[in-house]
Amino acid sequence: MMYGTRDVRVEDRPDPTIIHPTDAVIRVAATCVCGSDLWPYRGTDSVTEPTPMGHEYVGIVEQVGDAVREVTIGDFVVGSFFASDNTCEICRAGYQSRCVHAEMMGAIGTQSQLARIPLADGTLVATPGIPDPDLVPSLLAASDVLGTGWFAAVAAEAGPGRTVAVVGDGAVGLLGVLAAKHLGAERIIIVSRHADRQALAGEFGATDVVTERGDEAVARVKELTGGLGAHSVIEAVGTQESMMQAIRSTRPGGHVGYVGVSHDVHLPGDELFFSGVHLHGGPAPVRRFLPELIDLIWARTINPGKVFDLQLPLEDAAEGYRAMDERRAIKTLLHP
Amino acid sequence: MMYGTRDVRVEDRPDPTIIHPTDAVIRVAATCVCGSDLWPYRGTDSVTEPTPMGHEYVGIVEQVGDAVREVTIGDFVVGSFFASDNTCEICRAGYQSRCVHAEMMGAIGTQSQLARIPLADGTLVATPGIPDPDLVPSLLAASDVLGTGWFAAVAAEAGPGRTVAVVGDGAVGLLGVLAAKHLGAERIIIVSRHADRQALAGEFGATDVVTERGDEAVARVKELTGGLGAHSVIEAVGTQESMMQAIRSTRPGGHVGYVGVSHDVHLPGDELFFSGVHLHGGPAPVRRFLPELIDLIWARTINPGKVFDLQLPLEDAAEGYRAMDERRAIKTLLHP
Repeated sequence: MMYGTRDVRVEDRPDPTIIHPTDAVIRVAATCVCGSDLWPYRGTDSVTEPTPMGHEYVGIVEQVGDAVREVTIGDFVVGSFFASDNTCEICRAGYQSRCVHAEMMGAIGTQSQLARIPLADGTLVATPGIPDPDLVPSLLAASDVLGTGWFAAVAAEAGPGRTVAVVGDGAVGLLGVLAAKHLGAERIIIVSRHADRQALAGEFGATDVVTERGDEAVARVKELTGGLGAHSVIEAVGTQESMMQAIRSTRPGGHVGYVGVSHDVHLPGDELFFSGVHLHGGPAPVRRFLPELIDLIWARTINPGKVFDLQLPLEDAAEGYRAMDERRAIKTLLHP
Repeated sequence: MMYGTRDVRVEDRPDPTIIHPTDAVIRVAATCVCGSDLWPYRGTDSVTEPTPMGHEYVGIVEQVGDAVREVTIGDFVVGSFFASDNTCEICRAGYQSRCVHAEMMGAIGTQSQLARIPLADGTLVATPGIPDPDLVPSLLAASDVLGTGWFAAVAAEAGPGRTVAVVGDGAVGLLGVLAAKHLGAERIIIVSRHADRQALAGEFGATDVVTERGDEAVARVKELTGGLGAHSVIEAVGTQESMMQAIRSTRPGGHVGYVGVSHDVHLPGDELFFSGVHLHGGPAPVRRFLPELIDLIWARTINPGKVFDLQLPLEDAAEGYRAMDERRAIKTLLHP
């Protein structure tokens, strides 16, 4: 529970129950702290009352409502941070995070032992079986941070022959690198000043590191791309500076995929107009990618779980937040 | 020449000559007044010194520089409002308006009898022969207003099965309707309060008219699209209101193609983020589309010249501007 700025407490709460016949209740096997949880933690987003936290989760289905058909008690499941029916016209177009019945899992809170999952049939994807323990962090990553980095890379149209630049070296940016590599990008530039994150970016497929910031980073990306800018730029921060850096790092006709939750951003229309870039992003429709991501993880083709460089019991959640806030950890996994 | 707000004068100027070996000089057969010429005319853009005007043109090649290979003296040619080499990496990707050697024709001025065209080989496209006089307005439209509407429809991904909404009932918006129709859109909604423009939109393929403005127009577009918004929205104005109307009229995952020259626009990052739309636009790379557009016009498959509802001799240019400013004319063609 978040009580206010830098005030996270673990406390006993009533067990969740089935409210709607389309609900399931899962026993959470692993959950984690999201970069976006740091906005309220740092006081950028205000917290007016004690608020359950968390929207990333994997676990075992423990109860299902009467209308649930696709998942069964005992299934190991991965779900997105938005519950979605996966049948409406918006879902079918691949935008499940904007499902006409979408519910934000963050409003329910999954940093817990049990969690109610609305629209279970549309939201949850069962794995082929109970995963080996070493796969659990990667499957958990699929729930948000991998799915979000993946969406950013797809939105930025990363692919063969493309140079991709990544603004933001948090877990999403790093997994954007992994996604761009998997999608076939020729060259991947990570903008980062942290040696540990540069190293992980390298493991995930980054070919170049830019250590400058802001417009100097833009100039460096242009230098690396014949003066033109990258074909594809992933934005994974959400500030005015990072958005402008992403737009300015992109060549005319190139693509910006932006997934950093936008905070106090105002895009100047004239600069955007003359940039000639494509801009696409928002809350990632993770559900679109889950079946593919689970397959890749199950086959051990990708190992996104590496972004969890700190694992703690759920009761130490406050330390998990603190470590990320102080940049001692890239991302904290919590064991309920 | 524009001397200041609402002060357009026709005067004798020295004949243009070949400056660079890649230049051509054309005898202008027809030119016109652009919606964007009204920004300085109305004083929104300041005019600090007498400025040659015009960037749309068709004509006959009269001189070529030593390095010109593709066009020949006597050719009837159409060019874009940006001169481009059509060989650089950006041009080859289809973004000729951002060619690394791009020059704005507006800085040269084509509301004249003769005009120097830089980078003639890359900029100009010859028609199959000297056109019948009734084709000249349509070929002139291809130079900017048709190419711009076409780009907007392509950027908005208008196509089969799609509902397209068009914000802006000027010549670009109307030709966006024509383009969306040609690209196979199932339903085309024009937002317009002017009977004459609604009628022309209908001729070009519009199936629905929305007469509301702003958020009321958004609500009406949603009503017409099952509450979801249009798949594709063309923005052809360039103001804060029109941009927000376009974004809000688009369903999550849909596409906004924006071509109205941006004036005092600041897009709120959070609303854009949660909208989940694709945003693409800017100065249209008309050159990308010219060969196809010339073919369609030559075959009389499309008749975009209908947007010229006023034709005047060049010496009456001031009246041509006035009529558009006062909305007595959609678009004025000038005969040099």
